[in-house]
Amino acid sequence: MLFNSSRNALMFTMPKMWSILAVNIVLSMLGYFVILNIVPKFKDMFLKAKLSGVDLNKKNKPEIPEATGVITSCIFLIIMFIFIPFPFSKHLLNKESDFPHQEFVQFVAALLSICCMVLLGFADDVLNLKWRHKLLLPTVASLPLLMVYFANFNSTTIIIPKPLRVILGNDIDLSFLYYVYMGMLAVFCTNAINIYAGINGLEVGQSSVIAASLILFNVIELNGICWPNHLFSLYFMIPFFVTSIALLQFNKYPARVFVGDTFCYFSGMTVAVVAILGHFSKTALLFFIPQIGNFIFSLPQLFHILPCPRHRLPRLNPDTGCLDPSVFQFKEKSLSSLGRLVLKVYQLFGLIKVEPSGGDKEMSQATNCTLINFALKMLGPTHEKTLATELLVFQVLCSGIAFVIRYPLASLFYDR
Amino acid sequence: MLFNSSRNALMFTMPKMWSILAVNIVLSMLGYFVILNIVPKFKDMFLKAKLSGVDLNKKNKPEIPEATGVITSCIFLIIMFIFIPFPFSKHLLNKESDFPHQEFVQFVAALLSICCMVLLGFADDVLNLKWRHKLLLPTVASLPLLMVYFANFNSTTIIIPKPLRVILGNDIDLSFLYYVYMGMLAVFCTNAINIYAGINGLEVGQSSVIAASLILFNVIELNGICWPNHLFSLYFMIPFFVTSIALLQFNKYPARVFVGDTFCYFSGMTVAVVAILGHFSKTALLFFIPQIGNFIFSLPQLFHILPCPRHRLPRLNPDTGCLDPSVFQFKEKSLSSLGRLVLKVYQLFGLIKVEPSGGDKEMSQATNCTLINFALKMLGPTHEKTLATELLVFQVLCSGIAFVIRYPLASLFYDR
Repeated sequence: MLFNSSRNALMFTMPKMWSILAVNIVLSMLGYFVILNIVPKFKDMFLKAKLSGVDLNKKNKPEIPEATGVITSCIFLIIMFIFIPFPFSKHLLNKESDFPHQEFVQFVAALLSICCMVLLGFADDVLNLKWRHKLLLPTVASLPLLMVYFANFNSTTIIIPKPLRVILGNDIDLSFLYYVYMGMLAVFCTNAINIYAGINGLEVGQSSVIAASLILFNVIELNGICWPNHLFSLYFMIPFFVTSIALLQFNKYPARVFVGDTFCYFSGMTVAVVAILGHFSKTALLFFIPQIGNFIFSLPQLFHILPCPRHRLPRLNPDTGCLDPSVFQFKEKSLSSLGRLVLKVYQLFGLIKVEPSGGDKEMSQATNCTLINFALKMLGPTHEKTLATELLVFQVLCSGIAFVIRYPLASLFYDR
Repeated sequence: MLFNSSRNALMFTMPKMWSILAVNIVLSMLGYFVILNIVPKFKDMFLKAKLSGVDLNKKNKPEIPEATGVITSCIFLIIMFIFIPFPFSKHLLNKESDFPHQEFVQFVAALLSICCMVLLGFADDVLNLKWRHKLLLPTVASLPLLMVYFANFNSTTIIIPKPLRVILGNDIDLSFLYYVYMGMLAVFCTNAINIYAGINGLEVGQSSVIAASLILFNVIELNGICWPNHLFSLYFMIPFFVTSIALLQFNKYPARVFVGDTFCYFSGMTVAVVAILGHFSKTALLFFIPQIGNFIFSLPQLFHILPCPRHRLPRLNPDTGCLDPSVFQFKEKSLSSLGRLVLKVYQLFGLIKVEPSGGDKEMSQATNCTLINFALKMLGPTHEKTLATELLVFQVLCSGIAFVIRYPLASLFYDR
């Protein structure tokens, strides 16, 4: 799916393209230092507004500011507002040339979806919205994006992988189902990051790795025929990556701030936006391997097939200073037959550890179904800082696998 | 300044135009009932989040939810997201016709500015931002709008009123100053509504009157040559008016919710957006007569030429159940010479009441410089409900004056 009009309207010479990217990088770096400077200043405001949370995995249980993702997302938006004129400078300076409104509207709609998601994320942090809102809101926020997609491309045909072509033909038009898929992509990205969280630095860390992977992918693809799509993505991903790295300085172990749902929603939506408008949603999903794994692993608890306690984050062992997996308690006979089956399968594959719970003979306990608890089950008691580093290294390894799937392997399934 | 491209691209037949407006009205009405339904449900969430304020002008000093403007502004945004496809239905259904991206981007940029302002307003309510943020933020939020204005129109020439043409010529190109003016318009509208507040129902009431006046003006101008601009404005003003009326049901005396800075920012930005993109910023300002009066009257306190207490809202007299003007205390000799001059002039025109304060001979007190306190000085002690009604009647009268200035009087100064 080639973004033809963009190629025509925003056809830069190579030096021009790099100079615009340089502006983007400079603005992002400015944003980096602004964030380093203002986050400590805002700390008291957050505490005063009771927008704070207790860090349960520290011995002294400190109360630290929550939802500081709103600061970085606002800085990100300001960077983008200042940046927007640059890719269009040729047309703004020479009023005779036809202004490429079609590309311009993509920028504005992308920012509208992101801004809307930040608003909803911040509202969630402040008001503790219900689960149904968490699914409804990203869908609503992605509406302007889908509208732009419909007006600008409306390309809903997907190429069938080679092995399936005998059955399904070369391609298939998904029609409105493609829009459902894109809407769900926004819902998935926002929530997948949100539920793969619970230890210092993990939300921002994973987002930074995903952003870095996308930046690498975009830079590689700048040499391909769809380069305008990847240039568009870079305009968003570079400031997103840099502002996230700035926030990570405060959120990494020992966290001085929590980033809140605001950051997770902002992060997921920003990735979804470039994936949709850049036409590389499948590749983008490849960089979510740990999140997809964690999501699928979590499903039985999310859908209450297995009991789901309010918090599933690992718990601190005050004696060792290390984290142990958290558990949920249950009576086997009170589980549904599906619940018992899931438990058996998870146990068979060594994903969870089931053991008797305390004095009550009928009572059992099992480690909660999250990737973090699974990691702790495999690694044994681990310090929070080490665990965060190891999970981020895992995320980087998964990005490596994603590149292998995307490049050497994809040629087995698709024509280059 | 005629919005030519819109006339061409979105040239509806009259019945078609009215049917699209009907969709807008129906969606707005749905939004009305949704707001009536959900505001009470969200009340507890706001109180739990400590997002609440004390209604100082009630005997029992109740604690009620603050910043509920975020609910109506989100509903407004959802209405607009769902509505956007309709004005473009002709082009969306017939993919052969050239999609009017130029008009589409105006919708999206307008919503981006509004959404951004809602986010900042809500952040202000939660975090209590500083004054410099309150001036900076609307400027930032209006950047996408100004960019669209530059790309789509870049018309910065203003027509000179007839009496001044001998000196200044027929028109004058303000160039970048026109952008400064538009940026300041957004700052003014958001803050002007915010500082003309303090009694139940006034923020939402005045916004509703301004919206209704703009709707009337737009409907009159639908017969003129700039009708596409006014149609564009109606698309925003109708849902804004209807959702505000819904919120008024909860905010009117005795208020069950406060609307917060969120609503004032949202309201001011929505008006600024249609005034800028609809090319009727001067007329729009005419509907702000009470706000402009209140702003100018307040300036000496805002700039600390006269002492400015934290709250300037009128105070309840528990014996009468009526409101009295609030006062600030000062020692005449501690005022600057400018301060003494302003005090004298205000006293001369009967705008404030100065009297000795308590036992201390040197201490004086004067009523605070707001329109609300001035009204109380003129009317004597008044019940909060009556005062709100009278101030809203005054707002309606001022809109009447605005229409007289705009229609019969303007022809003295401008060619029709």
